[in-house]
Amino acid sequence: MAKRFMLSLSFCLLVLFQGSLARRQYQQQNECQLKRINAVEPDNRVECEAGIIESWDPSNHQQFRCAGVAVVRRLMQPNGLLLPSYSNSPQLIYIVRGTGMTGMLLPGCPETFQESQQSEGQGSSRFQDQHQKIRRFREGDILAIPAGVSHWCYNDGKEPVVTVSLFDISNSDNQLDNNPRNFYLAGNPEEVFQQTQEQRERQPPLYRRGQQSSCNNIFCGMDTRFIAEAFNVDEQVARRLQGENDNRGNIVKVKGGLQVVRPPTRLQEERAESEERDRERQRRANGIEETICTMRIKENIGDPSRADIFTPEAGRISTINSHNLPVLRSIQLSAERGVLYKDALVLPHWNLNAHSIMYVIRGRARCQVVDQNGDTVFDGEVREGQVLTVPQNFAVVKRAERERFEWISFKTNDNAMAAPLAGRTSAIRAMPVEVLANAFRISIEDARRIKFGQQETTLGSSKSQPGRAAA
Amino acid sequence: MAKRFMLSLSFCLLVLFQGSLARRQYQQQNECQLKRINAVEPDNRVECEAGIIESWDPSNHQQFRCAGVAVVRRLMQPNGLLLPSYSNSPQLIYIVRGTGMTGMLLPGCPETFQESQQSEGQGSSRFQDQHQKIRRFREGDILAIPAGVSHWCYNDGKEPVVTVSLFDISNSDNQLDNNPRNFYLAGNPEEVFQQTQEQRERQPPLYRRGQQSSCNNIFCGMDTRFIAEAFNVDEQVARRLQGENDNRGNIVKVKGGLQVVRPPTRLQEERAESEERDRERQRRANGIEETICTMRIKENIGDPSRADIFTPEAGRISTINSHNLPVLRSIQLSAERGVLYKDALVLPHWNLNAHSIMYVIRGRARCQVVDQNGDTVFDGEVREGQVLTVPQNFAVVKRAERERFEWISFKTNDNAMAAPLAGRTSAIRAMPVEVLANAFRISIEDARRIKFGQQETTLGSSKSQPGRAAA
Amino acid sequence: MAKRFMLSLSFCLLVLFQGSLARRQYQQQNECQLKRINAVEPDNRVECEAGIIESWDPSNHQQFRCAGVAVVRRLMQPNGLLLPSYSNSPQLIYIVRGTGMTGMLLPGCPETFQESQQSEGQGSSRFQDQHQKIRRFREGDILAIPAGVSHWCYNDGKEPVVTVSLFDISNSDNQLDNNPRNFYLAGNPEEVFQQTQEQRERQPPLYRRGQQSSCNNIFCGMDTRFIAEAFNVDEQVARRLQGENDNRGNIVKVKGGLQVVRPPTRLQEERAESEERDRERQRRANGIEETICTMRIKENIGDPSRADIFTPEAGRISTINSHNLPVLRSIQLSAERGVLYKDALVLPHWNLNAHSIMYVIRGRARCQVVDQNGDTVFDGEVREGQVLTVPQNFAVVKRAERERFEWISFKTNDNAMAAPLAGRTSAIRAMPVEVLANAFRISIEDARRIKFGQQETTLGSSKSQPGRAAA
Repeated sequence: MAKRFMLSLSFCLLVLFQGSLARRQYQQQNECQLKRINAVEPDNRVECEAGIIESWDPSNHQQFRCAGVAVVRRLMQPNGLLLPSYSNSPQLIYIVRGTGMTGMLLPGCPETFQESQQSEGQGSSRFQDQHQKIRRFREGDILAIPAGVSHWCYNDGKEPVVTVSLFDISNSDNQLDNNPRNFYLAGNPEEVFQQTQEQRERQPPLYRRGQQSSCNNIFCGMDTRFIAEAFNVDEQVARRLQGENDNRGNIVKVKGGLQVVRPPTRLQEERAESEERDRERQRRANGIEETICTMRIKENIGDPSRADIFTPEAGRISTINSHNLPVLRSIQLSAERGVLYKDALVLPHWNLNAHSIMYVIRGRARCQVVDQNGDTVFDGEVREGQVLTVPQNFAVVKRAERERFEWISFKTNDNAMAAPLAGRTSAIRAMPVEVLANAFRISIEDARRIKFGQQETTLGSSKSQPGRAAA
Repeated sequence: MAKRFMLSLSFCLLVLFQGSLARRQYQQQNECQLKRINAVEPDNRVECEAGIIESWDPSNHQQFRCAGVAVVRRLMQPNGLLLPSYSNSPQLIYIVRGTGMTGMLLPGCPETFQESQQSEGQGSSRFQDQHQKIRRFREGDILAIPAGVSHWCYNDGKEPVVTVSLFDISNSDNQLDNNPRNFYLAGNPEEVFQQTQEQRERQPPLYRRGQQSSCNNIFCGMDTRFIAEAFNVDEQVARRLQGENDNRGNIVKVKGGLQVVRPPTRLQEERAESEERDRERQRRANGIEETICTMRIKENIGDPSRADIFTPEAGRISTINSHNLPVLRSIQLSAERGVLYKDALVLPHWNLNAHSIMYVIRGRARCQVVDQNGDTVFDGEVREGQVLTVPQNFAVVKRAERERFEWISFKTNDNAMAAPLAGRTSAIRAMPVEVLANAFRISIEDARRIKFGQQETTLGSSKSQPGRAAA
Repeated sequence: MAKRFMLSLSFCLLVLFQGSLARRQYQQQNECQLKRINAVEPDNRVECEAGIIESWDPSNHQQFRCAGVAVVRRLMQPNGLLLPSYSNSPQLIYIVRGTGMTGMLLPGCPETFQESQQSEGQGSSRFQDQHQKIRRFREGDILAIPAGVSHWCYNDGKEPVVTVSLFDISNSDNQLDNNPRNFYLAGNPEEVFQQTQEQRERQPPLYRRGQQSSCNNIFCGMDTRFIAEAFNVDEQVARRLQGENDNRGNIVKVKGGLQVVRPPTRLQEERAESEERDRERQRRANGIEETICTMRIKENIGDPSRADIFTPEAGRISTINSHNLPVLRSIQLSAERGVLYKDALVLPHWNLNAHSIMYVIRGRARCQVVDQNGDTVFDGEVREGQVLTVPQNFAVVKRAERERFEWISFKTNDNAMAAPLAGRTSAIRAMPVEVLANAFRISIEDARRIKFGQQETTLGSSKSQPGRAAA
């Protein structure tokens, strides 16, 4: 029966993660009447035993309330373990630096990673561990985590792991309200969003037992006897699940390193990834367990050879969307990784169907963001470690100033589209010269210059000289 | 032409009920910042000629505003007829007790139930009645009614019919605001939701004619001459449609019982249902009218043999979702019927992608509901006739106290998923023992106990002894 | 590479316009607690060089906030060019009068309209213009424009073009807030919605350069040097893009008429349209560029022979929905064009799954709109040039008074359904006579009259005499 149950659960998962198309909500409270957007640094910082968590809180920034998102940056020290948790919204995680592994816990999926008897060298086969699939990640990876699905991360490398996560609170997969929430399965983590934290301080809960302030995971709120009964253990062990007096925070140090069934090395991994892709292609003909429990939740967009748009003089852009990572179709997010060389330009454009939330990985750029009135809501420099939101339909232009500029942009649509204003794929190029001449009150000659002057798409190099126009 | 019109209407229905996927809205007003949830009884009661209607009003309870739902319980006496009406939101109706019949009025579908000449024994064939399909219902049935679709119900049994209905106001099929509304086609029913009632009292409408307070159906607001012209009857008959001075309420008594073309008996009915399911399977190849006008809108989940999860010592759970009742895919709701034996436990879990609104059919249970801060927002007993909401992602544990506990839970997703915290399909089981040991600061030995101690899924019997763990 | 880029863009478009199903949001702020609806004329008027733009602003009318829409009427003089712009919401445009052409600018689609060398008679082939497809429109056409997609219009006829546009702000394709916004690519147009205009006046923006009040398009907010660099032109030309001191408004006069690659004449056009439909049918087997860049965005519903419902004595109704214009599936709107002869009746009905926003093209009618309490929220005359909203589920009846009545109704669902209360496809007809008799407390005889009295569907002629009922 259990097997059938798992099967039925997996079948649900199939629908959950493939069939259900999350939709976004617009903001009803004039949250997008933005008079000014700022490039902002995190406004909250939580220190943990083996890392640091910083957050950009939507309650502090109208730009995030307009976009309906929250942003979190995590630094995990080597041997740091991010405690298992889930969120009320789907999230994308970009690995800025480092390597590690993660386990996404899908209810009903089989434990397919199994210790061999030899590797442990133990006499009793009963003690062999088995658990769900573990995935490795490395710099440049995007990980997609659906709402309500728990996961843990571990840094098994020698340098710190730095990640930036986007929580898509306005996603219709979130049926709660517009507050970001993390539910922890273990430990006693500090809440990373001030809002919730403050509210909690102001309004003491009605039911809290024992040493309240020292307890924050979801077992805390349950009766120890219930837990003991549910896990079939004694109450002393049950109490340990509640994580009281645990001061290690959300990222804990694993002494001696984590001994788990080793996921394959990077080379093996790449082979495995390509196999996953093969399997994806065959999916329609396949069984069910293979399709969900092994679904691909990551894709690397850091590799320069992966570029979707490349101009030798200007830079490159790699995109990830539901065409190259199908799980994004269900969580309705996509991302863009960009590199802009010194003095090069991202040609002016607007995001047709998505908000864009940009985190600067390296360097600095001058940006301008323009609203429907032609007003500049942002005009300034955006630097490494800052976040800048470009709302849907607002026009934007970027220019790398003095140094190379690298960024990751999260987009609130699984196939976010940019509509360029200049260059070979632009709206201007699509119009007849006569329409341009009349619209801009210019000569046919000038209209031709405007229309055919820029030969590039998306990225423009500053080496292009004025006057090179078709005229 | 009429036939073609019907065909085109049916085709629209096809899309309406199968293709359009309703999505939910989240609550933007911090409605889910729940500090405390209560198990609540109905807060409004309307007595009718042949029954009682009680409602749980979302304006009185934050838990219902968070979930975006309203709940109604109806008691219909034998020979009681629930007047035809439709709602601005889709609804699920659970038959707690009794048997009866219902007619769902689908615009454009043919009148397929026809009186035979013999049965009436009348000379004139012009007087034979014909009408749309009538469906029988019985204890344990779930009926799914799309938004805007009118229906009536009739108790043709010997005992009262008791039903509990969930109105999914936050469903995107509702394009009006977040107030539950019922539109009545006949009679002069009293509004069951206080909110609307109060608002109506405070703000008198601008146009009301004649004896206002004695008129509540949608014909009331129309000119009698218009009605006469539209129905091609004289004004005296037209006035009867407006239901003035009708004090019978929403459920009226049919003297002598309702004489309609008799729907088949239960045995015949079950055969018919299985035929419907066969037809459903063949649907892709079939014509249009068969697919919609005869679509299956009900499924029985009361029958013990129908259990999806069954543990002889603990109880059983039956679920209904879009896989076994396809119409649920369009209205994005599902349900779970559970039975928990004395002292047994529903293992701790969270609802991954849905709110859960539980109505207690029988007995009592101790429940605990925990939020993202580890705070217990509910800790107490929930009894027969009460409703308790468990918001999406909140953790919950239930234990039948002193007696058998039975419930129906409505879920705001057509494939609602629970993620267990303990047992064979749990998140804890999916993690490596080393992760558990480090997360909970416990020994490998204890981590193994926690991971492998509970062998059951979903339901746990209290007979399982602490110490039976894998170690 | 550019070709591959275009291909990938087109593929995105494929998903954008076909796969993504926009959903609507309900109104959370009791906006649909309508005590009174009025038939309203536009409340703002902007005069342009070659036309007039009038708007119905949602900030002034609860009925539009409830429906989540804004309405705009434009009059374009001969040789008038509506400057290119895009909106944060999808829109339907109905051509009330006149003929012209429009260009919808789809990013990444090829420039398929090309000047031949002969027609220009110029020596240098470098000067030949090429641009994206131009579509002709004429009276009775509905044009569908997705959110964020820019387009321009031009009146090349001899009489003024009059259009009425519905902006569907509550559509989930709009991720901004509930304010209608137009983003202009050129000129210095005045904002047509007062709300935004007022807010702008009250709260001066932080960054505005030069002569602020004389600049309103999206290039205004960008640095002239950036524009020069992006378009590879000198700064003087770049400055012309910003449209400073342009007082022509949104609709400008083209002196001597617009010289563009001529789209085919109407006859050729109809042939082309039928070819497009053919292509649509073959779409699944075809390549990508054909499917999107040539997608059909218009359909004529003004032609009497196109009627879907026709009663010689009463009038006719033509509908447009995602079955006859597939792009509507992605923008979730549909429309109905109706003609009601003198003294004829649109039988009472409710809109099952959509709001209906009616614009009166000609004549006048008496209307009654009824809410869930049986209260008449509208009872009066609606005349040419007025707009009246009928919210979802509200009952409505219309009667042409003294003259012929013509209207266009926009509906907020791609397959909007009406549920008639009287006539051959009505809910009343679908019920057993005995249910009617008991519900309305009338005799079986009267119930039969009510049920079978009206033989028509949707439209009723006043010539039908009371007493013609089946009895």
